Parts: sequence; structure tokens; C-alpha cells
Amino acid sequence: MAPSAKLQKFEAVFLNKIVPELVQDAKDQNMPKEAVDWYERNLVHNTVGGKCNRGMSVVDTYQILTGKESLSDEEYERAAILGWCTELLQAYFLVADDMMDSSKTRRGQPCWYLVDGVGTIAINDSFMLEAAIYKLLKIHFRSEKYYVDLLELFHETTLQTEYGQLLDLLTAPEDRVNLANFSLEKHSFIVIYKTAFYSFYLPVALAMHMADVASESNLAAAKEVLIPLGEYFQIQDDYLDCYGDPAHIGKIGTDILDNKCSWLVNTALAIVTPEQRQILEENYGQKDGEKEKKVKELYLELGLEGRYKAYEEKTVAELKEKIEKVDESKGLKKAALYEFLNKVAGRSK
Amino acid sequence: MAPSAKLQKFEAVFLNKIVPELVQDAKDQNMPKEAVDWYERNLVHNTVGGKCNRGMSVVDTYQILTGKESLSDEEYERAAILGWCTELLQAYFLVADDMMDSSKTRRGQPCWYLVDGVGTIAINDSFMLEAAIYKLLKIHFRSEKYYVDLLELFHETTLQTEYGQLLDLLTAPEDRVNLANFSLEKHSFIVIYKTAFYSFYLPVALAMHMADVASESNLAAAKEVLIPLGEYFQIQDDYLDCYGDPAHIGKIGTDILDNKCSWLVNTALAIVTPEQRQILEENYGQKDGEKEKKVKELYLELGLEGRYKAYEEKTVAELKEKIEKVDESKGLKKAALYEFLNKVAGRSK
Repeated sequence: MAPSAKLQKFEAVFLNKIVPELVQDAKDQNMPKEAVDWYERNLVHNTVGGKCNRGMSVVDTYQILTGKESLSDEEYERAAILGWCTELLQAYFLVADDMMDSSKTRRGQPCWYLVDGVGTIAINDSFMLEAAIYKLLKIHFRSEKYYVDLLELFHETTLQTEYGQLLDLLTAPEDRVNLANFSLEKHSFIVIYKTAFYSFYLPVALAMHMADVASESNLAAAKEVLIPLGEYFQIQDDYLDCYGDPAHIGKIGTDILDNKCSWLVNTALAIVTPEQRQILEENYGQKDGEKEKKVKELYLELGLEGRYKAYEEKTVAELKEKIEKVDESKGLKKAALYEFLNKVAGRSK
Repeated sequence: MAPSAKLQKFEAVFLNKIVPELVQDAKDQNMPKEAVDWYERNLVHNTVGGKCNRGMSVVDTYQILTGKESLSDEEYERAAILGWCTELLQAYFLVADDMMDSSKTRRGQPCWYLVDGVGTIAINDSFMLEAAIYKLLKIHFRSEKYYVDLLELFHETTLQTEYGQLLDLLTAPEDRVNLANFSLEKHSFIVIYKTAFYSFYLPVALAMHMADVASESNLAAAKEVLIPLGEYFQIQDDYLDCYGDPAHIGKIGTDILDNKCSWLVNTALAIVTPEQRQILEENYGQKDGEKEKKVKELYLELGLEGRYKAYEEKTVAELKEKIEKVDESKGLKKAALYEFLNKVAGRSK
């Protein structure tokens, strides 16, 4: 199936099934129309419109794990509902992140809190996106023996992501630069907790539960690959922010200007001389193109591109080695993990 | 036990047991110290310091339902943990409500988002207060057969409260007065969803699960009393805001100034002549003491105090009737419900 048709099919589950179901619950409780309409608009504006990589990967992983040529409509829909639960979790975080970061746009649209009439109501709206997850799980998975596992998985992943977000907010406030806050250890904690758990481990773990291969040892084996893979994904993101082709990645990187706790600045801080550190102190995290240029010159001097390439090569080799060690006799499939590795290792945007 | 000693005992569970446990989880995941300390400060600032009526009512109700003279230390602690989960749920909502309402103080302290250095980080902090509930339930109740019921009860109550909060925000924005938005039906939806479910039904339902009397019919019987009781509580709150003694209730009511969707204005709107409505249109919801006075004069003219007294009398009688009909042979106790009714009916602050 062409990528766009695949996305369309996935989105149709949300728009034609999930949204009507969630909205019906509000109607059933006699919620007045203006609030029902608002809830629907919140769901659609904030959950649809992205690439849905996380959500669709639940379906893909489920298909690989079950070894089926194709999924029945019902099976597809159930896996897609779990996929949309991960998208709702992300929407919950992003609506709030955009307020905390004072972002302006998201997926080419104004951020929800900036939409006319929304403002801080967006906080309650973000809460409702999260609550929708548990409503959906109750409707569709309540009778499954793995129902509690799904609930706990979402609870755990939510808290992990919040841990990561908290450290990120404390480490790199946009308005107070303090490079003494930064370290590669903190960077690692932030990206693993803020991104890797919900973007990489969660979709696979959901598919594993649905495919009935979620033994403790299988989950641990998947996690051992997916967490470092998620970390690599984010480090690559940091790299592309500075070294990617803006025409290709679709945006101009602003990590240096925005005082981001990026892998690049943390790697730099770990190897600079006192004089070079002075350059960072004087130029990092300020809204000034000239200062940004000085930081980029220092990155060049420090050979950060080469260091990234070396990190990447080493990481990909280690991940392949880990995947090769997976014991497929217990239901976990190497192909499911390679699918993720190949998507990350191959990307340039 | 004296009220203050009772509260102290309850708070000790949070400070000496719950907070260290939650913080330990963050430490176990190697979260850097500044973020661990922040999390601890968030937990304490936002959860402790209130009257804890909701939380302590879980313990009281459990004791009544089990008919025990006194609880063992272990039993007390387990009931108190469920009580603190309701307090954490409330903290989750209040941190966010204060941002959405631009409130200044809460429990005599600055609102969390106004504390130096916090700002919008408070959004993620509110998320973490909610996540703490599920961490605690997992630690302490995972092996209970009613574990899933507890999770679903919190999920359901959370969504209900968010429904109520959404309608409240849409109906009565502080800065745009439109009395055509108001109605007694909406008022009823808002107070039941925003307050009654989490403040009245939730604590009792939790205690019923723990006391093993949470059959569907018992829960329904309890709900049938507690939801209208919660509505009455909020209507009384609206009444006291205007007619209570400020010296006694500890604050000066500002509902008229703040465009609140109060029971009083909704009752007025239902009975006014066109001329009287004009007075409301011209004077309600504006930050002007003279205009507030005109609204109060109209309330007097309309005899709202008398209408409230009549509502109260009728409601208390109906609630007593419902409580009397409770079938105690199945484990639910009238005394547990009277305990709530007496607290509400007797209060003047």
C-alpha cells in the first residue's frame, strides 16, 4: 500500500470510529452541545495531522509478530485503536509542551492554545486527550486478559515521559542559559524518558500484548533494543537540526538559538578546552544569528560531525548485534525490531 | 480523636510514607537530584495543606462499612493511601484550575504556577500528581481482586471531572459575560461532573471496594445519594458565597464579580421579568462593587434566600428518604451516607 493510502486508512479509524465513540460517551452523559462540539474539535485538531509513525507502528509490529499476510478488518481496527492510544498520549504531551515552550505552530497549524478562544482551556483539553485513552481501552479491551497490562503500560510510560519532560524543563529553560546544567548523562536521561519510552517501546509492547507474546523476557529483550534505538533517534534528531538539509527536513534548526540541551552541545562540553568553553558560554542559547554561527564554527573545530558518525556506526552495529541475539522461539521476531532500526538508520529527515 | 490530631495522623501517611515512596521511584530510575527535589516539592506544596475532607472520608467510610471499633495500623494506612489518591486527583485538577482561572492564592499560599521559577512547568507538574495515583495503586493494591475496579474508578472520575470543568470554562469565562449561556440545567451538569463525582462518590466507592461491599447495586445505591448530595453541597457553596458570614467562612464571596455560573444567578434567570433581567445583564460579572450591590438587591427582591432554604429543606428530606431505603443486608451502611449528609447539612462554612 502506498504510504499516503496507508496513512489514510489509519486516520479513517480515528475519524470514523474513535471520535464518534468518544463523543457519544459525552452525549450519553447529557453534556450540552457546545461542550460536545468543543471536545470533538480538541480530539481532531490535536491528534490528527501528523505522520502517525508511532501509531501505525503498532499495526505493523502486530502484523509482523503474528506473521500474517494481511489482517482482517476487525484485527486491523483493534491494532489501530491501540495505535491511536499512543497518538492520543502524544497529543496529551504536545498540547502541553507547546504551552510550556511557547511554541507557535505544530504540524503546520497554530498550536491549540493559540487557536482563537482556546487559551488556557488547552490545559483541560490536554487532560481530556489522556482520559480518552482509558475510555477507549475500556470499551475495546476490557475483556482481554492483558487489559491490566495495557493500563499499567500506559500509566508507566506516562510517568516516564513526565520525568523526562521535567528534567528537560529544569535543565534547559529557554530564557536562562546555564551550561553548567548540561551533561551527556542528563541528555541521555532526558531523551530516553521524554522520547524513547513512548515513541519506541510503547508501540511495540502494545503490539506484543495483542499478539500474545508479551512475556517478561520478551518485553525485556524488546526494551533492550528499543530504548537505545530511541536514544539514537533523538541524537540523530539533534544532529540533523544542525547538519541536516533544511530543504529536506522541512525546517531550519534552532537548537543553538533556543538553548536546547542537544547531544551536540553536550558532546562539545565534554571535550572543550577552557578557551573553547568560553566561546560556548558567550554564544550558546541566545537569539542571535552571529552567535549561532560562532557556535557552529566551534562544532566544526571540535569535529562533532565525525563524532556523530562514529557514534552512529557503533550504535547501529550494537543494535544489530542485540537484535541477532533475540530468541525467536518465544514469539518475538527480529524482523519487528529491524523494521524500527531500518527506519531510523535510513532517515535523513 | 480531636480534629487536628486526626488530620495530623492522616498527613503523616503522606509525608512519611507516600512522598518517600514516590520519590524513591524517581531515584531508582536515576533521575538527577534537582528533578527529584522538584518532584518532592510539587507533591508537598500541592497536596498537603487543605482540610483533607475527601481523603479522610475514605478512612471514615471504610471504618463504618467494616463496623470496626478501630483500625489496625496497616488497615488505616491502606485506607489512607486511597484517601491520598483522591487528594492527589484533586491536586491535579487544582494546579491546573488555578492556571485556567488566573487565581492568586490557594490554601493561603501562592498558587503553584506563581511560585518563583515554576510558571508553566506547573502543567507538567499537574500531570505528575495524577501519575502518582497510579504508581501508588500499583505499589499497594496490585494484588487485590478489585485492583482493576480502582483503576477504572479513577479513570472514569477523572473524565467526568474534566467534562464538568470544560462546560464550566465554556459557560462562564471570567472575561466575557453572556447570561444567555447560563441555565439551571447547565449548572446542574457542571456541579455534578466537576465536583460531586470526585468529592462525594469517589471516596465512598473506594472505601466500598476496600471493604468488599462494592457490588453493582450497592455502588448504584450509594451514587443515588451521593451525587445529589454533592450537588446540594455545591449549591450551598454558591449560597454561602453570597449569604455566608465572611468572618465565619474565611473569605469574601466574589461570584457575582467573577461572572460565576452560580445557582443563585441561574435561579434568578429562571424567574426574572424582562426588566429584572436587564438589571442582571447590566450588572453581573463585572469587577465593580456598585454593580455587585445592584445584583444583590435584585436577589433580595426575588427572594432567593427563601428559595434556597426551600430547596435545602426539600433536598435534605429526599436524601434522608433515599438513605432510609438502603438495603443494609448487602453490606452498605446507612450510617456511612448519613455521615456525609450530616457534614453537609450542618455546615455554615
